[in-house]
Amino acid sequence: MAKISALSGFPEWLPAERIVEQHVIDTFRRVAELHGFSGLETRAVEPMSQLLRKGEIDKEVYVLRRLHADDEGPDAEQADPDRQLGLHFDLTVPLARYVLEHQNDLAFPFRRYQVQKVWRGERPQDGRFREFYQADLDVIGQDTLPVHVEAEVAIVMAEILAALPLPGFTIHANNRKLSEGFFRSIGVEDTQAALRCLDKLAKIGPDAVAALLREEAAASAEQAQACLAFAGIRTGDEGFADQVRALGGHGELMEEGIAELADVVRRVNTAVPGVCVADLSIARGLDYYTGTVFETFVEGHASLGSVCSGGRYDRLAADNRHGYPGVGLSIGLSRLVSRVLSAGIASATRPVPTCVLVAVADEEARGHSEAVATALRRRGIPAEIAPTAAKFGKQIRYADRRQIPFVWFPGAGDEEHAVRDIRSGEQVPAEPSTWEPPAEDLRPRVVRADG
Amino acid sequence: MAKISALSGFPEWLPAERIVEQHVIDTFRRVAELHGFSGLETRAVEPMSQLLRKGEIDKEVYVLRRLHADDEGPDAEQADPDRQLGLHFDLTVPLARYVLEHQNDLAFPFRRYQVQKVWRGERPQDGRFREFYQADLDVIGQDTLPVHVEAEVAIVMAEILAALPLPGFTIHANNRKLSEGFFRSIGVEDTQAALRCLDKLAKIGPDAVAALLREEAAASAEQAQACLAFAGIRTGDEGFADQVRALGGHGELMEEGIAELADVVRRVNTAVPGVCVADLSIARGLDYYTGTVFETFVEGHASLGSVCSGGRYDRLAADNRHGYPGVGLSIGLSRLVSRVLSAGIASATRPVPTCVLVAVADEEARGHSEAVATALRRRGIPAEIAPTAAKFGKQIRYADRRQIPFVWFPGAGDEEHAVRDIRSGEQVPAEPSTWEPPAEDLRPRVVRADG
Repeated sequence: MAKISALSGFPEWLPAERIVEQHVIDTFRRVAELHGFSGLETRAVEPMSQLLRKGEIDKEVYVLRRLHADDEGPDAEQADPDRQLGLHFDLTVPLARYVLEHQNDLAFPFRRYQVQKVWRGERPQDGRFREFYQADLDVIGQDTLPVHVEAEVAIVMAEILAALPLPGFTIHANNRKLSEGFFRSIGVEDTQAALRCLDKLAKIGPDAVAALLREEAAASAEQAQACLAFAGIRTGDEGFADQVRALGGHGELMEEGIAELADVVRRVNTAVPGVCVADLSIARGLDYYTGTVFETFVEGHASLGSVCSGGRYDRLAADNRHGYPGVGLSIGLSRLVSRVLSAGIASATRPVPTCVLVAVADEEARGHSEAVATALRRRGIPAEIAPTAAKFGKQIRYADRRQIPFVWFPGAGDEEHAVRDIRSGEQVPAEPSTWEPPAEDLRPRVVRADG
Repeated sequence: MAKISALSGFPEWLPAERIVEQHVIDTFRRVAELHGFSGLETRAVEPMSQLLRKGEIDKEVYVLRRLHADDEGPDAEQADPDRQLGLHFDLTVPLARYVLEHQNDLAFPFRRYQVQKVWRGERPQDGRFREFYQADLDVIGQDTLPVHVEAEVAIVMAEILAALPLPGFTIHANNRKLSEGFFRSIGVEDTQAALRCLDKLAKIGPDAVAALLREEAAASAEQAQACLAFAGIRTGDEGFADQVRALGGHGELMEEGIAELADVVRRVNTAVPGVCVADLSIARGLDYYTGTVFETFVEGHASLGSVCSGGRYDRLAADNRHGYPGVGLSIGLSRLVSRVLSAGIASATRPVPTCVLVAVADEEARGHSEAVATALRRRGIPAEIAPTAAKFGKQIRYADRRQIPFVWFPGAGDEEHAVRDIRSGEQVPAEPSTWEPPAEDLRPRVVRADG
């Protein structure tokens, strides 16, 4: 037997923990479908030519090779980037490819959610996972996509996060047009460089960012200070607009960004009160974004970083007929679940779906116990049958070890059946066709530690 | 833009098709949980030393390599089979590893279901998938596992298959002890070879198998004929027992197999009438199995081969303290779903979750439409809002294109709201707080083509 040990960076859960993860996935799906998003699943692999387009060669992609490929002569698949395969590192590259591939079969705006594992070969000692779930929501237009979709996708995410067993969270929003318009209007022309510098604010602090702005964005000392003051603006309503103007920002692009951001903050807070703030420090490094950008933080868990990020991008994909603008948000689901579990934020009420263990008096009567279990299951009550006809005390201990709340004792012939709550020891007469467990015991539930 | 095209062997579905696949997964999960099976998910990768143990070097494993691994000097990970990673090709190898790794945290018998993608680098031109879902049910004991579990797991699978939108299906059962006992009692000592020969019966026919039995299992012409007669036995009840004895089979091992198989056929048919037959041609090549073996065929789709296979194995895993016997069955879920879709056996009633499109009279009134949609969603009715305030005719055509059954026209101020069924054109007054769609329209359903 080969050595058995956990693989660093590849998290796996015990059954009770998996119930928490499944609950998070189910909640995501339920809310997304209520809002009319279609569930999509793409293959786990993409051609390396897709994964590395836009020159993203810094991505730690896992490349695949068939074990026996070498036996088949010169390896054409490995040499051709359109045929060499790698595991996807996010769900956005596959979405772009899927939309182009199936554009004639989709109705736009295309609304999809996708919850799948992604893989990144990063050093696990950085506290990063190499295999983890992402949960994405995107709306993709064909050639055009109305601006109000930016608020809409954030509202769906806010409803999802509010339905999860989490402490409070805040969605921080900014707008690329606002940032770029402001930088230009104070004379900082390399707006991408300025964004990349500000993106480091939380990591390296204001002094280092000021130095970086002068070095990399060719900002004067005064301009660097104005950028930092800009990034310090944070309001729960449209108050940010006057503060930006007071810093000397002006112009059409900036005012367009202000109007869009004010609209997002107002709409999201109307739908889920108090969850959205305008936070002009949100930069998100990627060149990719063209409108609203979002990051989301969980109260008391700043060290997690943003648990849900994204925004508006006008060029998800394009071919020679159409362009595909989109708005998308993505939850780093495994990272979030891992924290929920390790910090004891929430847990499952039991590790098994089973509500009732049906005892077996003797092996000849197993069929009788099976009939009881079948009657319970027909009414949606999860039931299993004791594995052996041991003494009842041993069968009760078995239920206790599996944390099954009820043990059923079938009555032989005309005898009454009885069911025992093994937590309280209370035993009552019961009929397989009518008995109901308390609603909170029917299935394992995921509950917050603080209530 | 790199070339976009489907990858042979990596199936992907359009939204309406994905609803069918999701329905199959949901059904599997619902029934498995009703029977007290815990949902498990393991990482997609295993060390190559695990994947290739038992000398399974014929498996077409996908080996992983980090794109930047080469930059980091001599590649220790690639050289060490305990550190080199591959994608799992089934869910049994990971289960064995998981059980050993977590034995102190699991309660035995451990009941788990697992629905996950697996990868095999086989030539896609054989009509095989390279990435596909498997859906597994296993019960794992520590050191011992009662024989009645063999019927139990088959019953759960029968209930799952019966709940799926499939034509009729039949679970074919045999028993290793019965086969081996029979072969020995007629003087064929190399029972593994005999099983491997009989496993080819459907593929190469009886004459070729007879020749093979003489060649590879050292059978006489008479013995080969007896083996073929044995493999021809097929009964829906315990009638098989006398037929086997009439062929000259006898002995303790064979009678033990007969008793076990009779019990399986009787119990499964009691739970789901008529689905289980004793079929002594079922051999399943793997040395692995030690008791009941199963294969499952769908009526009218023999070309699919077995859609659900497995059985009893006494040595899933072992360390120097414990052995772990198990009973498991596995559905080739993607292959099954692919056939359901391509043969038009079942389909989704619509491609989107949305039940109601709320129209928008003008962009200023979008908030009003949002309030209607929110009221509907609060009562579990999936709703989305028209993307633009186009003319109502255009909004209705948008709903039609997305196959959303109802369009809601919000009343301004004190005006009445109205909802239109765009299939019939019927429009009625409605209140967002009370209106209910017909139950069959609430969510997309998966329905059989024949009713």
